[in-house]
Amino acid sequence: MKKAVVLLSGGLDSATSLYFAKNKGFECVCLIFRYGQRHVKEIAAAKKIARRARCRWQVVTLSLPWKGSSLLDREMKIPVATTSQGHHVTSVPNTYVPARNIIFLSFALSYAEASGARTIFIGANAIDYSGYPDCRPEFYRAFVKAAQLGTKTGIEGFPIKIITPLITKTKARIIKLGMKLGVPYELTWSCYKGALVPCGECESCRFREKGFSEAGIEDPVLRSRK
Amino acid sequence: MKKAVVLLSGGLDSATSLYFAKNKGFECVCLIFRYGQRHVKEIAAAKKIARRARCRWQVVTLSLPWKGSSLLDREMKIPVATTSQGHHVTSVPNTYVPARNIIFLSFALSYAEASGARTIFIGANAIDYSGYPDCRPEFYRAFVKAAQLGTKTGIEGFPIKIITPLITKTKARIIKLGMKLGVPYELTWSCYKGALVPCGECESCRFREKGFSEAGIEDPVLRSRK
Repeated sequence: MKKAVVLLSGGLDSATSLYFAKNKGFECVCLIFRYGQRHVKEIAAAKKIARRARCRWQVVTLSLPWKGSSLLDREMKIPVATTSQGHHVTSVPNTYVPARNIIFLSFALSYAEASGARTIFIGANAIDYSGYPDCRPEFYRAFVKAAQLGTKTGIEGFPIKIITPLITKTKARIIKLGMKLGVPYELTWSCYKGALVPCGECESCRFREKGFSEAGIEDPVLRSRK
Repeated sequence: MKKAVVLLSGGLDSATSLYFAKNKGFECVCLIFRYGQRHVKEIAAAKKIARRARCRWQVVTLSLPWKGSSLLDREMKIPVATTSQGHHVTSVPNTYVPARNIIFLSFALSYAEASGARTIFIGANAIDYSGYPDCRPEFYRAFVKAAQLGTKTGIEGFPIKIITPLITKTKARIIKLGMKLGVPYELTWSCYKGALVPCGECESCRFREKGFSEAGIEDPVLRSRK
């Protein structure tokens, strides 16, 4: 069975990416990162999703001794989403964590090489997103090239593929796909804050709300709170 | 003063790279990684070197939950160097740590972005080396491109530079350069094993020995052991 390393954050996109990989016949192992997030709800969510999908997982703990992002620094304020996000993002918000996906991918590469997996799945999305540079297709193309030149498997002619199945889909299309694949959205957590219920105001909550609304599906996380 | 992040391993090359950066007028902060090495002598060496250079340092602790390298796995044997290494390496030895420099660079990028540094120094060398793919110039060129596309500073037009001052130098030339720059080679540690004295048999010891010998300089680490 072909093996894959799947980056799993506990959010909606990465859960869909995991079920997409499973559906394609991959034996998946999930990488979950504890990197000093403001809250650990998403880590708990990621574990539940991996368990539900009957996949193994590994938690990688990173002690980033710097901050520079409101997702890491409790003294910075997580911004309230402004009007209509979407395709035309003009600046990167302070929720951007410097080089986060580059760090995550580098670990995924290392794990893939060490375990014999030849494929990495990441749920990056460049449509309904916050303008993070490390979510765009051009970055992934360049990273794959670097990985090919910088790894043993790469120079030996077996480069590791990075698959971004959701990168050009709207949130609504991601959710519709996920519903077909049986993604347990009730287990996912998107809110940047770690309160008992999603705040409904941060960009991540807004994109989620917009996605379920446009898909014509009720968000099971909100339904269960009613 | 222009800031730089310098990757410091405690070995001869990274120490020279640090003094090179200082000599170019950079205010350097050293990144030292504790990533599950067989021994911590190199970490202690790195700290001493940073202190001697009067630079700040950060230790980043990574718990890699996988192995796949004799530098991480005590059950694997560190190979004895075979005859003459050098330019014509045909296979990657088991001391290769999957994607290690990619991981290190991703942290350096993150730290550079978070701290306002625009330059990273790494002492990679593709001449007197073990054939590690992540030590070759073509990898660095590709990684810089990926970093430019995947970071906030990159897309905003201030890409972070990665400088590899030693990449095409022989070990002898590196040592001669370092002597001019005042690198405290007596503090560096190259041996893959962590015994009281260098083993003299691993590839890293052999390259070091060859370098000092060709430079016509006595290795201060060996001198002090006499």
